[in-house]
Amino acid sequence: MSAFDGFLIPRDVAALFDAPAIVQAMFDFEAALARAQAAEGLIPAAAANAIAGVCKAELHDLDALVTASARAGSLAIPLVAELKKTVALFDAPAAACVHFGSTSQDAIDTALALATRRALALIDAELARLCEALLALAEAHAATPVLARTLMQPAAVTSFGLKCANWLAPLLRSRLRLREVAARGLALQLGGAIGTLAAMGDRGPAVARRMAAALGLALPPAPWHTQRDEWVRLGLEAAVLSGSLGKIATDLALMAQGEVAELAEPAAPGRGGSTAMPHKRNPVAALTALAAAQRAPQRAAAVLAAMPQQHERGLGNWQAELAEWPGLFTGACASARALAEAFEGLDVNGARMRRNVVEVGGPAFAEALQPDAAAVPAAALARERAAALRATLASMPAAPWPAPAA
Amino acid sequence: MSAFDGFLIPRDVAALFDAPAIVQAMFDFEAALARAQAAEGLIPAAAANAIAGVCKAELHDLDALVTASARAGSLAIPLVAELKKTVALFDAPAAACVHFGSTSQDAIDTALALATRRALALIDAELARLCEALLALAEAHAATPVLARTLMQPAAVTSFGLKCANWLAPLLRSRLRLREVAARGLALQLGGAIGTLAAMGDRGPAVARRMAAALGLALPPAPWHTQRDEWVRLGLEAAVLSGSLGKIATDLALMAQGEVAELAEPAAPGRGGSTAMPHKRNPVAALTALAAAQRAPQRAAAVLAAMPQQHERGLGNWQAELAEWPGLFTGACASARALAEAFEGLDVNGARMRRNVVEVGGPAFAEALQPDAAAVPAAALARERAAALRATLASMPAAPWPAPAA
Amino acid sequence: MSAFDGFLIPRDVAALFDAPAIVQAMFDFEAALARAQAAEGLIPAAAANAIAGVCKAELHDLDALVTASARAGSLAIPLVAELKKTVALFDAPAAACVHFGSTSQDAIDTALALATRRALALIDAELARLCEALLALAEAHAATPVLARTLMQPAAVTSFGLKCANWLAPLLRSRLRLREVAARGLALQLGGAIGTLAAMGDRGPAVARRMAAALGLALPPAPWHTQRDEWVRLGLEAAVLSGSLGKIATDLALMAQGEVAELAEPAAPGRGGSTAMPHKRNPVAALTALAAAQRAPQRAAAVLAAMPQQHERGLGNWQAELAEWPGLFTGACASARALAEAFEGLDVNGARMRRNVVEVGGPAFAEALQPDAAAVPAAALARERAAALRATLASMPAAPWPAPAA
Amino acid sequence: MSAFDGFLIPRDVAALFDAPAIVQAMFDFEAALARAQAAEGLIPAAAANAIAGVCKAELHDLDALVTASARAGSLAIPLVAELKKTVALFDAPAAACVHFGSTSQDAIDTALALATRRALALIDAELARLCEALLALAEAHAATPVLARTLMQPAAVTSFGLKCANWLAPLLRSRLRLREVAARGLALQLGGAIGTLAAMGDRGPAVARRMAAALGLALPPAPWHTQRDEWVRLGLEAAVLSGSLGKIATDLALMAQGEVAELAEPAAPGRGGSTAMPHKRNPVAALTALAAAQRAPQRAAAVLAAMPQQHERGLGNWQAELAEWPGLFTGACASARALAEAFEGLDVNGARMRRNVVEVGGPAFAEALQPDAAAVPAAALARERAAALRATLASMPAAPWPAPAA
Repeated sequence: MSAFDGFLIPRDVAALFDAPAIVQAMFDFEAALARAQAAEGLIPAAAANAIAGVCKAELHDLDALVTASARAGSLAIPLVAELKKTVALFDAPAAACVHFGSTSQDAIDTALALATRRALALIDAELARLCEALLALAEAHAATPVLARTLMQPAAVTSFGLKCANWLAPLLRSRLRLREVAARGLALQLGGAIGTLAAMGDRGPAVARRMAAALGLALPPAPWHTQRDEWVRLGLEAAVLSGSLGKIATDLALMAQGEVAELAEPAAPGRGGSTAMPHKRNPVAALTALAAAQRAPQRAAAVLAAMPQQHERGLGNWQAELAEWPGLFTGACASARALAEAFEGLDVNGARMRRNVVEVGGPAFAEALQPDAAAVPAAALARERAAALRATLASMPAAPWPAPAA
Repeated sequence: MSAFDGFLIPRDVAALFDAPAIVQAMFDFEAALARAQAAEGLIPAAAANAIAGVCKAELHDLDALVTASARAGSLAIPLVAELKKTVALFDAPAAACVHFGSTSQDAIDTALALATRRALALIDAELARLCEALLALAEAHAATPVLARTLMQPAAVTSFGLKCANWLAPLLRSRLRLREVAARGLALQLGGAIGTLAAMGDRGPAVARRMAAALGLALPPAPWHTQRDEWVRLGLEAAVLSGSLGKIATDLALMAQGEVAELAEPAAPGRGGSTAMPHKRNPVAALTALAAAQRAPQRAAAVLAAMPQQHERGLGNWQAELAEWPGLFTGACASARALAEAFEGLDVNGARMRRNVVEVGGPAFAEALQPDAAAVPAAALARERAAALRATLASMPAAPWPAPAA
Repeated sequence: MSAFDGFLIPRDVAALFDAPAIVQAMFDFEAALARAQAAEGLIPAAAANAIAGVCKAELHDLDALVTASARAGSLAIPLVAELKKTVALFDAPAAACVHFGSTSQDAIDTALALATRRALALIDAELARLCEALLALAEAHAATPVLARTLMQPAAVTSFGLKCANWLAPLLRSRLRLREVAARGLALQLGGAIGTLAAMGDRGPAVARRMAAALGLALPPAPWHTQRDEWVRLGLEAAVLSGSLGKIATDLALMAQGEVAELAEPAAPGRGGSTAMPHKRNPVAALTALAAAQRAPQRAAAVLAAMPQQHERGLGNWQAELAEWPGLFTGACASARALAEAFEGLDVNGARMRRNVVEVGGPAFAEALQPDAAAVPAAALARERAAALRATLASMPAAPWPAPAA
Repeated sequence: MSAFDGFLIPRDVAALFDAPAIVQAMFDFEAALARAQAAEGLIPAAAANAIAGVCKAELHDLDALVTASARAGSLAIPLVAELKKTVALFDAPAAACVHFGSTSQDAIDTALALATRRALALIDAELARLCEALLALAEAHAATPVLARTLMQPAAVTSFGLKCANWLAPLLRSRLRLREVAARGLALQLGGAIGTLAAMGDRGPAVARRMAAALGLALPPAPWHTQRDEWVRLGLEAAVLSGSLGKIATDLALMAQGEVAELAEPAAPGRGGSTAMPHKRNPVAALTALAAAQRAPQRAAAVLAAMPQQHERGLGNWQAELAEWPGLFTGACASARALAEAFEGLDVNGARMRRNVVEVGGPAFAEALQPDAAAVPAAALARERAAALRATLASMPAAPWPAPAA
């Protein structure tokens, strides 16, 4: 990871897709394959046990695997060779059963699906925090007046609670859609050399069914070696989320400007300082979320551009997709976490919001704030929206991924 | 339209989003607004009639409107001014009822949704043709052997029917997903100046309900002036489709190479010639689909990058999104139509497929083609997949858009 | 052109690349080819005259040409056919001399180079206005204090003149670099069927030299049918310019916010209004420039992504590049013009700049503004920079393109 | 680094931008700053010595720095704090001289320029190998006939040496342009808090001059904190290179297809195998270069999109640019190295090229290969181009970067 990814992506998030995680997930694939094939009588049960017993990343030299992968043109090639060698130490005939009837892409795509599932669990957890924080603000500030601004000019008076509700709604939609696209996109890849599972005879479909169940992945209607649409939809959904988070960060940064001063990110030691100006309190959560929103569209373009893959396995495009993929999820996760932290401790300056209405909007706007005004504009609407979003949040369906590790 | 868009995008497709179509759709919005407001008692019925009566693009100078839009910063500003002026000629007090309680973005976003609905109808019709053509090929060629190729190298023998089925499956998924995202994304925009519909008092929601029903658009949970996620998902789905079509075009172009010669696009006068080489028969459908697949990712990036819109209406980003949007749909439509034409008249050279297996794959591959071989590899699988896809095609749900004009 | 391109791109700018302009430029290519070949004795002088005499777009049915181009897979194919037909009416044997030894791509790439040259002339003229306006502001406001802001937070006091100088410097660099890359990138394309000019025997290079001189284009070291690097550099330079203009627009939009109120775009009838809020004065120049800056990166990505073109002429990628190309230049031109208009009439509120320093920056910042302060911070630096930029502007080298039509 | 970047980017290339390299380069900046300030009398010479003495990455806990950077919003903040703390252990008053008058962005941008300089040295060295290999092929195969193909269809007969010369020419241009843009773009960043170097009084320019000389970087006309054009041009030039390399890889992959069989990448143990198909020899160099060409356009878009940075230092966009930057150079370097290896050992099958001309092109094409034909088409042209390129290669100017470490 470059020094500047390290700056934007928290370490535990980056680790979701690093070599140890992916290699272990590939071993999980190989172990599940062997067990499923044993259950279907394709290989001996003893061979499956021998294989599964050494499918542990910590038993192998990861650096050597990654280095060899460049030369081989695939991470699976040195990994399968290493696995065969290790299995042979314990059970020589079992070595021939390693990776039987499968292909590099089966192991790699499945491993990436497993890693992505963990990323989605973490993203959803961070979003849950952020949604709760935004909903609390929406409820608390339904009647807090604030300038509405269009084309970056003062437009009319609205409710800060309504702004919060508007920020929140797309996040709830993202959580729902991520569940939907993940239920299809987090799919087992198992096609063998050319997508026909030919080597497994008529046992191929049964092996696939067993593996999908064991690994907790969807069973796709067919291998998706070069039909990447469901997978790409999942990546794009992460990009949409980064966009919705970027919208929140844009408004946060604008409202935190010195001349506006309506919001401030929480202060904390070591947070948002400056080497040159000790007085500063920089909006680092907005920074992180804006950076993610700037990067996500290009990653989305990359995975879309990689779709026209040749014949039964792509050359260059599939590999580019794999490399661009993690950034879609690590960026969204970093963004959600940064904003969750910011909004959980957000400094809301209601007095300044009111003052800006009067001073910037002028007399016509100030009228809306008079004591005899029927009500702060949009307060009722804000309450209604917040209630609806509270109901949506309460009925959020269970996710197709397990809870993130504590 | 630049000369080179004219080259890639058929005229009727480009016309879906040109000034006459968009201006008429904006007038449709204004007429529906007036009628709904009259029904809710917000404006007199006579005013609504006067307004609706002149909401016809052919009554107005489109060129002048577009020219004025640049200076105004919005197409709606001169259009509303023109509409007020025209209404006043017939019913002076009704002029004040024009566009009441609404804002530029309401008219523009709604108009673009209406235009996009027409584009989706056309795309679906072209896809229907292409799906039928591919399914027929999948069924006819289940037992036609062809080289499978991975990383652009010969890999094993597969079935050409299976290749066709694999090309088809993502198109059926796209047709289904487009229905789903369109059902949410093709939504009425109605928020008034700052998204609160304040000027309509408590009649706002009822006006919105009536307008959505009248225009055949979804009623969104809230205005989406700067919450573009559902809309962006619709655009991205078009980009995914262009990617899936691009994959087909990639394979078609590769299989049509002189040295491979397994497929050829249909020959026709004026089709795929060359100014320098009269002997040539260029794959122009593949060309069109590949160009669309090259352009779509960048358009997708553009609409994603435009998501972090400021406050209650964006500056620059919303307008960039509007301008980038049409290309997502015109490109997909041009691509689908070009491939439909190509596959309806596709030249399939089964003998050459067989010869390539033998000559390129060598003896090991040729074995699979011996008369005493159990079966052509993957023929059974191809039949099974084709049958499943036939069933999916037969049960394709009704679309949330009307049939395209004949 | 979609309705929303019409909104962002002025009509005269869009016309630079529309069908009439491109078709005429292709005719210019064909006429220059015939004349050069006559001068080299490859075709009769009378044939050259007959050809050149009908190389006028107004003599031909442009709509029919564009429509036929889609089917043909190239705009050149129907154009050459039409030209041959027309020439034959006057001089039957001359028809065989039309387009002799050339290929579609020669005519199309050269025509696009000619159109791009006109676009560069217009861009440079708009930039000249904007540079002069910015330099005048830099000189006039060297001693006007304004808040410097980093990470969107108040940072220290600087000079508004220095901000203007900083905005200006990249524009002068862009004008210089555009001259450099245009001198190489605006090149004749002449390679014949496969880039070898084989049909012209040993006269090919001489024909190319004559054509380059006649058309005012560079003579490249070799045809660049599928070696697009010099051409792509030119397109990227336009994208860099849009980025530098976007930076100015960003600052302008931020400084024009109601709460900051340091700058305002000029007011004028029909400029920057709102259908919903008559009080508004929207920053439409910033809007136009920001939209261009949002779109340019994706166009740049598109032309870069199109570089890996196959063999001697690309399939799909070349055509995508052609279609994406114009937007790079029309966007930059629209942006430069909009900002030139804004800065020529810019409202600078020096008193508010001073007030923001005091009120937002607080006592520490206010100190810098005391009458007994040595000097307004950075005033000397601002003067020095402005003087250096004035010198650069004065020595701007002549451009490799003719003056734009008045 | 994700597992899949590890697969495409060799370890030594990725290391150019990882945390140890960047942190050391930031320390190099701090040491040079202290020495230059001592030379100009701004800080005591002893302080400079104390500072420079501990500016060594191996003395500090890199992991802790990177972890703290996320919270701080900048890698420079914890690094400067750590440096002050360490200096204070040896020379308490010197701690106050650390980073004097500078700002985070000065250290970070300069460090990235230093890292990029090393990357450019490595890229140029790989390109030198590739250029030599291509030129040797161009010379050796000037008279080897091969099918020219346009729109992926057989077009005419050309010379394989000419194809090699055409592949080579853009690489020589890239090497030249990289020198030019690096001479401006690899610039010192030194502006202090807001780009005015105010804290250094009138010594700022002299300090900058000394630092630029000491670090081997260009002295820019002004700080470029938010004027990124020269820097972005450098990044784009890397993207252009990846595009030109991608074009070579495209042709290589097409010519290595089983049905074409004109070229093959060198065979070696562990190179280009398959887990499922032991007979395969996959074109892994083409794979690497194609993947780089797919990714580069999106990185280019990202750095362009980041250009409109706010005021005196950007929020989110600058940081996104930093994170996207390394990929432009590591991708180009990986691509150049992979192709250098492939072309140094390339398998050229001249007999098959000839056979393809005859069998695919047909009788008309075969004629060109008759013994009594004047000459193999384009052989003379190929020789002429190769000679010109040999001359260009011989006169390649010295690079503005030191030789890469052996």
